[in-house]
Amino acid sequence: MKKFTMADIAEMSGVGKSTISRYFNGGYVKEATRERIQAVIRECGYMPNSFARLNARESNIIGVVVPTLNSKITGRVITSIDRYLREQGYETLIKSSDHQIALELDNIRRLISLNVGGILLSSISITDQHRELIANSPIPVVVMAQEFDAGISVVDDDYQAGFEMGKYVGKSHPEHVVWLGITDTDRAVGIVRRQGVLDGLKSCGVSDIRLFSGDYSYESGQKMAKEALESGPVTAMICATDRLAFGAYHTLAQFGKRIPDDVSVAGFGGYDESELLSPELTTLKFDSYALGQLSAETILRLIRNEPVPVKQVIGFQLIPGKSVK
Amino acid sequence: MKKFTMADIAEMSGVGKSTISRYFNGGYVKEATRERIQAVIRECGYMPNSFARLNARESNIIGVVVPTLNSKITGRVITSIDRYLREQGYETLIKSSDHQIALELDNIRRLISLNVGGILLSSISITDQHRELIANSPIPVVVMAQEFDAGISVVDDDYQAGFEMGKYVGKSHPEHVVWLGITDTDRAVGIVRRQGVLDGLKSCGVSDIRLFSGDYSYESGQKMAKEALESGPVTAMICATDRLAFGAYHTLAQFGKRIPDDVSVAGFGGYDESELLSPELTTLKFDSYALGQLSAETILRLIRNEPVPVKQVIGFQLIPGKSVK
Repeated sequence: MKKFTMADIAEMSGVGKSTISRYFNGGYVKEATRERIQAVIRECGYMPNSFARLNARESNIIGVVVPTLNSKITGRVITSIDRYLREQGYETLIKSSDHQIALELDNIRRLISLNVGGILLSSISITDQHRELIANSPIPVVVMAQEFDAGISVVDDDYQAGFEMGKYVGKSHPEHVVWLGITDTDRAVGIVRRQGVLDGLKSCGVSDIRLFSGDYSYESGQKMAKEALESGPVTAMICATDRLAFGAYHTLAQFGKRIPDDVSVAGFGGYDESELLSPELTTLKFDSYALGQLSAETILRLIRNEPVPVKQVIGFQLIPGKSVK
Repeated sequence: MKKFTMADIAEMSGVGKSTISRYFNGGYVKEATRERIQAVIRECGYMPNSFARLNARESNIIGVVVPTLNSKITGRVITSIDRYLREQGYETLIKSSDHQIALELDNIRRLISLNVGGILLSSISITDQHRELIANSPIPVVVMAQEFDAGISVVDDDYQAGFEMGKYVGKSHPEHVVWLGITDTDRAVGIVRRQGVLDGLKSCGVSDIRLFSGDYSYESGQKMAKEALESGPVTAMICATDRLAFGAYHTLAQFGKRIPDDVSVAGFGGYDESELLSPELTTLKFDSYALGQLSAETILRLIRNEPVPVKQVIGFQLIPGKSVK
């Protein structure tokens, strides 16, 4: 029987060698291309034997999938995971999904194929494909920071946190409130946190609330704040993250609006920088170090077949600041 | 011949199994203990065959060692590396040294033992042990962000950047300048950047300069600023990073000092938040995305035996802000 090489597979699939390499390394490959490559591999029984294989199950390697490597909160969470696992004699293998759901799914597949001991998944969004992958995974998975009813999760209390912040801002009875948020694909922040905020505001009788959504960047915060100000009167801006609130500060300064006299601003995050803004940002800090450590403890318990709660909820703290009237 | 288990090795070495596990996983093990374990392993010919082995050389895995997972600049650098390598069909294996030199050395050893295709090393400090490890490494290594005369490096222009900032602050002829810096073990920031600042200041005739040093944290910036203010008159604070400058802002507010009327403040980093401070922070931004991508390109060229420069110097940009008189 002919021994096929990666070059053969590439040729038969009608793609370049680098695409085949990406296919095996969990990189991005278009769905149609992926299926074509799979068909070719099946047909000729190709096994990438020069390819990385970890005998990882007994090797104390834990895979960690994160939405980005470029966020303060993610930095806190993975630092905490990495420290805890290292102390326990384990090693982390970190994969970033760079805010792309397709890449996140590829990362999970890749970790399963590497046969790591367990997977800590900080998900952008739990899709049906996630559910299927996790349900069929031979390796334990702990989902972090997103509710996951079909398995084990460690989550922030996004609804309650949102509610507290909504109530805190609502107490001053702002007439026109805007929510600068995240798209609905991120259920925890995009939907649950927002719903908490809305319910908290409504509990104070606030009814004029306009909703905006974008991505997690500083620029997106600036853009949404501009859209909000141009869409009608605004007396309070509640932002899904501190970074978005930073963007709002920038835009409000450009529009000549004073915080909090003209517009109250609040965020979620509790970054060090938030207390340095003028005025100090009103924010809410989740205990991200606890989230990381408890998730790491949980995956080790699963590996050892010890009992674990299906869901653990992490605490938070409202930091009053001076940016809300 | 008896087949030894990890438990046997632990017992013969007089340590717990978790220590043996850490030993093989590149975790921290005291030097004396490490030597004892090595002796036992040599004696009984133990090979951890259930242990993770990557056939990684042909598998497109690049190891990346970073000083921390919890820094804005590191976040930018590894995001850039990860994106570039993924596009090229490569995969990154990220290891954090958590600001500990011993752990950094263990991380390098671990990546060599995994036989990854190449190593990108963002080092806390280049010690003799680093030199020896890199000189004997069968795997190409690119050193990032620290000068490395015995191999290939991609560095920020710390001296020139420091000089520009020193000159920028020096132009207003501050009488009493303090440098809030980093310990000398970090040569790039602790020594080279500082020397640039000192020479830049001196080129403007500034001679009263007092030096302080600490770590990279916000708290350390606060503490050094306090020490500086209590040690004598201060009219300008030049901080080794924006985070330290944030700490200085905090302390100056506590002391009732106005920026820049009483004290000028400058940093290095160019974080998004820096432009939101009141007054906007005068800072200097290195092109960290370029540093990441060029380092990644360089390691791939080394793997392909293509020619590379021994040293590449990355550009920077001074952001004037409003915190310097």
